Amino acid sequence: MNATRKIVNDPVYGFITIDHPLLMQVIAHPYYQRLRRIQQMAFAHLVYPGAVHTRLHHSLGAYHLMCNALMELKNKGVHITPEEETAAKIAILLHDAGHGPYSHALEHTLIKGLRHESISQLIMESINRETGGQLELAIHIFNGQYDKPFLHQLVSGQLDVDRMDYLTRDSFFTGVSEGVIGYDRIIKMLCVWNGELVVEEKAIYSIEKFLVARRLMYWQVYLHKTVLCAEKMLVTIIQRAKALIGAGIKVAAPSEILNFFLQEGENLKIEDHLEKFCQLDDFDVMGAIKSWMQHPDKVLSALCRMLVDRQLLKVRLQAEPFDPAFMAEQRAITAKAAGITEEDAGFLVFTGEASNTTYDPYEERIQILFKDGNIRDISQVDNALIQHNLSRPVKKYYFCYLNPAVAEKLF
Amino acid sequence: MNATRKIVNDPVYGFITIDHPLLMQVIAHPYYQRLRRIQQMAFAHLVYPGAVHTRLHHSLGAYHLMCNALMELKNKGVHITPEEETAAKIAILLHDAGHGPYSHALEHTLIKGLRHESISQLIMESINRETGGQLELAIHIFNGQYDKPFLHQLVSGQLDVDRMDYLTRDSFFTGVSEGVIGYDRIIKMLCVWNGELVVEEKAIYSIEKFLVARRLMYWQVYLHKTVLCAEKMLVTIIQRAKALIGAGIKVAAPSEILNFFLQEGENLKIEDHLEKFCQLDDFDVMGAIKSWMQHPDKVLSALCRMLVDRQLLKVRLQAEPFDPAFMAEQRAITAKAAGITEEDAGFLVFTGEASNTTYDPYEERIQILFKDGNIRDISQVDNALIQHNLSRPVKKYYFCYLNPAVAEKLF
Amino acid sequence: MNATRKIVNDPVYGFITIDHPLLMQVIAHPYYQRLRRIQQMAFAHLVYPGAVHTRLHHSLGAYHLMCNALMELKNKGVHITPEEETAAKIAILLHDAGHGPYSHALEHTLIKGLRHESISQLIMESINRETGGQLELAIHIFNGQYDKPFLHQLVSGQLDVDRMDYLTRDSFFTGVSEGVIGYDRIIKMLCVWNGELVVEEKAIYSIEKFLVARRLMYWQVYLHKTVLCAEKMLVTIIQRAKALIGAGIKVAAPSEILNFFLQEGENLKIEDHLEKFCQLDDFDVMGAIKSWMQHPDKVLSALCRMLVDRQLLKVRLQAEPFDPAFMAEQRAITAKAAGITEEDAGFLVFTGEASNTTYDPYEERIQILFKDGNIRDISQVDNALIQHNLSRPVKKYYFCYLNPAVAEKLF
Amino acid sequence: MNATRKIVNDPVYGFITIDHPLLMQVIAHPYYQRLRRIQQMAFAHLVYPGAVHTRLHHSLGAYHLMCNALMELKNKGVHITPEEETAAKIAILLHDAGHGPYSHALEHTLIKGLRHESISQLIMESINRETGGQLELAIHIFNGQYDKPFLHQLVSGQLDVDRMDYLTRDSFFTGVSEGVIGYDRIIKMLCVWNGELVVEEKAIYSIEKFLVARRLMYWQVYLHKTVLCAEKMLVTIIQRAKALIGAGIKVAAPSEILNFFLQEGENLKIEDHLEKFCQLDDFDVMGAIKSWMQHPDKVLSALCRMLVDRQLLKVRLQAEPFDPAFMAEQRAITAKAAGITEEDAGFLVFTGEASNTTYDPYEERIQILFKDGNIRDISQVDNALIQHNLSRPVKKYYFCYLNPAVAEKLF
Repeated sequence: MNATRKIVNDPVYGFITIDHPLLMQVIAHPYYQRLRRIQQMAFAHLVYPGAVHTRLHHSLGAYHLMCNALMELKNKGVHITPEEETAAKIAILLHDAGHGPYSHALEHTLIKGLRHESISQLIMESINRETGGQLELAIHIFNGQYDKPFLHQLVSGQLDVDRMDYLTRDSFFTGVSEGVIGYDRIIKMLCVWNGELVVEEKAIYSIEKFLVARRLMYWQVYLHKTVLCAEKMLVTIIQRAKALIGAGIKVAAPSEILNFFLQEGENLKIEDHLEKFCQLDDFDVMGAIKSWMQHPDKVLSALCRMLVDRQLLKVRLQAEPFDPAFMAEQRAITAKAAGITEEDAGFLVFTGEASNTTYDPYEERIQILFKDGNIRDISQVDNALIQHNLSRPVKKYYFCYLNPAVAEKLF
Repeated sequence: MNATRKIVNDPVYGFITIDHPLLMQVIAHPYYQRLRRIQQMAFAHLVYPGAVHTRLHHSLGAYHLMCNALMELKNKGVHITPEEETAAKIAILLHDAGHGPYSHALEHTLIKGLRHESISQLIMESINRETGGQLELAIHIFNGQYDKPFLHQLVSGQLDVDRMDYLTRDSFFTGVSEGVIGYDRIIKMLCVWNGELVVEEKAIYSIEKFLVARRLMYWQVYLHKTVLCAEKMLVTIIQRAKALIGAGIKVAAPSEILNFFLQEGENLKIEDHLEKFCQLDDFDVMGAIKSWMQHPDKVLSALCRMLVDRQLLKVRLQAEPFDPAFMAEQRAITAKAAGITEEDAGFLVFTGEASNTTYDPYEERIQILFKDGNIRDISQVDNALIQHNLSRPVKKYYFCYLNPAVAEKLF
Repeated sequence: MNATRKIVNDPVYGFITIDHPLLMQVIAHPYYQRLRRIQQMAFAHLVYPGAVHTRLHHSLGAYHLMCNALMELKNKGVHITPEEETAAKIAILLHDAGHGPYSHALEHTLIKGLRHESISQLIMESINRETGGQLELAIHIFNGQYDKPFLHQLVSGQLDVDRMDYLTRDSFFTGVSEGVIGYDRIIKMLCVWNGELVVEEKAIYSIEKFLVARRLMYWQVYLHKTVLCAEKMLVTIIQRAKALIGAGIKVAAPSEILNFFLQEGENLKIEDHLEKFCQLDDFDVMGAIKSWMQHPDKVLSALCRMLVDRQLLKVRLQAEPFDPAFMAEQRAITAKAAGITEEDAGFLVFTGEASNTTYDPYEERIQILFKDGNIRDISQVDNALIQHNLSRPVKKYYFCYLNPAVAEKLF
Repeated sequence: MNATRKIVNDPVYGFITIDHPLLMQVIAHPYYQRLRRIQQMAFAHLVYPGAVHTRLHHSLGAYHLMCNALMELKNKGVHITPEEETAAKIAILLHDAGHGPYSHALEHTLIKGLRHESISQLIMESINRETGGQLELAIHIFNGQYDKPFLHQLVSGQLDVDRMDYLTRDSFFTGVSEGVIGYDRIIKMLCVWNGELVVEEKAIYSIEKFLVARRLMYWQVYLHKTVLCAEKMLVTIIQRAKALIGAGIKVAAPSEILNFFLQEGENLKIEDHLEKFCQLDDFDVMGAIKSWMQHPDKVLSALCRMLVDRQLLKVRLQAEPFDPAFMAEQRAITAKAAGITEEDAGFLVFTGEASNTTYDPYEERIQILFKDGNIRDISQVDNALIQHNLSRPVKKYYFCYLNPAVAEKLF
């Protein structure tokens, strides 16, 4: 990787070009290479078998769209220095570097109270120290502390290249062609106005399409009931392991690193263990799950076998919360069938909520630049599709449970 | 074409299979072959150069989706006889056979007061006579007189294979990838309930996507201001030619057939001249326009030269109608610059309206079959995107005019 | 078209950008716009219904690849001035401007002894005069007279952007996905060495693939027997019309321009009639054919009706020439069935040859730049697929004839 | 998975339908689900980041093509019973079930002398016992012992659905679009003649294309020098671990199952340990490699760190074998730089050969059915591309080595 120009084949965009030594250095870094071992969509592949692409692939893709977006803005006369360009590219390359095993699925479960963005920033700071301060500007852009807000908005905003890539790529690898968005058209319509990222009026239908595609991907893919169930089982497995450890029962993961986080995950300061964190990936977690298929704790081993063999819990979705009395009753049934306590049955019968907001006009804004020179939020546009009904969060409640007949067989 | 099975390459679907002698006979018929010479999207190719596909190609594509939909329904246990199957396929093959030159663009202009569907039916009746009554059932399905309404709804309804193909195909050939719909998923979700076509609940996001894609295609492609302008110029050329003829001025088309319709178009009964109509295609009209580039009438020849050389009138769109006083003023300016009367300037400066309804819950309905066995209209679904704001027609008003500087040069 | 930057949707490449006023001027010129009315693949759409794309679309596509190739070479340090860049782009935009109606199918038939490249050059010279000499450099590059040969080779050579586009585009629109080539990879591997275009060693499999895809497209599409037959019928129609005219029989085309070339085509100097030539397109020829369906000459009208209604002559292909005795016999049979002379039957029963050379190492060369710095021709590469067996022209002989039963019906 | 019909989204083919209870039972079996955890292309993703698809996905894809091929043959009148149909589908679903971790890369390394096909058969026999003999016919077809040879040839032959899927799928996921083959056209051209699978003459260019695409995929992807190097490093890691174990040094894998095979792999009878084998997957091997990054043996830990962090050995390819004297010299250099013995340096500096035969007319045959009713081998066809030069195996020799500067840093 010491050439001055490298071309990577990408089934989504054709070719991705890397043409700066600092970019190559970042990509070659073990902290970045680790992203090869973290799947972008966790267990979505249990429903969409093609969805096995990695965080590394996604961040390369988002980097490619960043290159296109910056070139487009420069062609339109927006002043961007070569240093800013490289920094914005590094910021997007590393924006997800802080993801742990199975990405969002295990966030907040392995290590309490820590968003992946915070860890991404720690990683950037670490590489910054290694490279004698060459990531300073990238960190400022990532943070939103740099005085050209549009650069941060390209990394993280309502129309950022992160979303454009993950919608495009997840749609591509799942084969849900309806998730396709017109990323190239949207990028061609980007402008900067008062330092902020805006889009030209004529992109309005493409943006509607983008929001609707996102909505579709959420309900059809990310929150697909079977996907949701598998990911909740993963969370439950880790919670059960931690509960057993907390109760003094031995639950060792074959991976030393994962063991460390299982034992210490509640209280540790991530800053002190960043290097360890950066050795953790899907292989550690799946290795543990495979090993726990034989664990003496029946609940833990049952959950692990079910996840590995794809014999998942049953799941139901509905618009209202599930009644606690109903839940208690269900736990009792399972407890009886499996011969376990009702408390333990809570690891096999549980509920929770999933939600999605198609467009949130309060938190984030898509600003449209009209031909008359005015800027308005997309939700204010005449005849727009994107109106108040799309800006309320939509919640669905899931209920996962074990078929009693299966319980009898498994326990 | 006397083999029992023919495979046609289609860039959109891969291969289209024709495997029944009657279907081959219909396809080989000169009335069907004529559709090769009628472009699906009239002058949209002036903006989207790939959009040069033909009515024949579209109707073959819709036929292919009909084959898929029928197979799907049969797999789900819906009773469809082989005769019904062939008839539904013929109905869709011929559903657009009644289109005249440049499809919708010239509908109602060449021949007054006649929808293409009526002519399609006359054509089916004519081929029916030729084949000794073999199209009887196809005609009933096309008409909506057959007692399995879902067969008619597949040909013509809110979710028919006609729309699925034209959205897919027009999106493909224009390169507007955002118009892509999940036709294969929608087809897999079709069911029949009480003889009517319904879709399973889980297709709901795909259908939202379908309606949004259609909305996007309307505003971005079909009603694109330049496309609209070119098609209005085409209409105006024919109107000018007819006005001249009406005033006793000689305007001959090089095509005898087109001449006949130009002279007689107002009063003729199409039933008496179906064979003539079926000789008419884009080549007759464009041949006339090319020839009229040299016509002594300055207005006619200017319009023809502008359309042929793609030096179109200017166009503006707005949400409200253009003020008649403004229009009169504009006509006066043009009249002066071109040295023509204000009445004649009305052929170079004109206004009108374009409209689109994304989903009309009154006229047509998309019925959803819920898991609980109930049927509801899509606009009644909780959290649905498709609500009242999408069911009102949205109108835009166009204003086409001649730049005075160009007027001076052209006249 | 007076903006400084225009984006065109292309289903093949996504977006094509035009960002120079001179390029816009060339594209807006009526001589260029005429290419909208000339189909790229003549009558191939009778077999591949999607193959209705135009010469204009192809030349825009080739222009897009030229933009990519020039950017790639500049990134590799090849010195190309902005003037050379614009000139090379104009040369490729206009490289096919000299094509007449139905492109290759009628070349040498309407006007004797004139290759389309010569007319393209006349057209460039004409626009050059109009623009005060701004196409001078483009003409030199087109001619091969400019002292950077690689620029000419990009326009016209064994690996030019013309071929890359037409293979890609024709494959796309026919739906023959096997014709797909890795144009983007080949372009990324282009270099300049001693002023000549060469390709890097690692592109070798892509180039093999390119040559094999071309071979496949020739035999499966361009020389498909039905396509060949339709195009030979077109040629025969024009030849028959000219023969009748030569014999003093009136054969008028509805188009005045086409009439001129029919009467004068043998002897005219194209330089004197360039403007007329540039008014000629597919519509003139098809308009004539449609009109001649009623011509009193039975042979002419039969051929025209057969072509319009797609009821083509039968055709056979074989590796050896057809025996003259066999041909005479066949003509006699047809003459008898149709009630015409044997000489006239020669317009319904005829033979000829079609040939293709996959790679001709003598005339054109694909030069490979090896890692060791040497240049060798691709046919010299070890283990190469492209060897002597691919460099001999392969001939096939066709025999078109009229089924006697059809002859009796038609005549 | 107890429904009678299941639809799976596939980015390559759209939808894959499973509509038989026995097929669902096979797919739900843990032995089949294990294939989710074995990557189809081992370490090719280090070069092609999209190439992370699994054996499960490939076998579902091959199953889909099998469904298409069987339907095609039935439509052509080939007699195939429903039982044969299901059996052929099961045979292809399980054809790769015997692959161990990292598929081909580790075949013969973990367990000596055993081809994956033999293990696939043991797995089929095991499921056959579980299901009371329902896989009997599938096993006969897989074996080639069934008296309709074409069924076996669809599973395993020169034009089997296995190859069609892996070329298509690997091309799709790597983004090497040139590997695309016309699988749908080839399938449409399949016939049965004398019980053997043959293809119609007009598929000949598609088959040439298929062979050339395969050739390209071999040299550009499967045997890409970096891919080759990574996979040889994987093999070397296992060999080193085994060598250390053989020398009495403790090398424990975190996975108990993998440990078993590491200790016993030389001598075990797979029949006795099939269940254990079916618990082994990529996660066990990668878990061990991650753990061995800290192993006291410097050679083992260096190789593991290099592979995990993608800091691979250097590699060179050439047409002739590398000279033993040169290899000895290189090993000496590395030994010195790393401070290890020359014998140990043999794990960091090694050579070997890679080979590919595009078409082997002796072992396997592609039979063409000509229009005249004759059958000939494709290599006998006139003007064929596939001639003797393509039927010799092509060998390349690789040389992997450690840059001395890196050696000093790592050791």
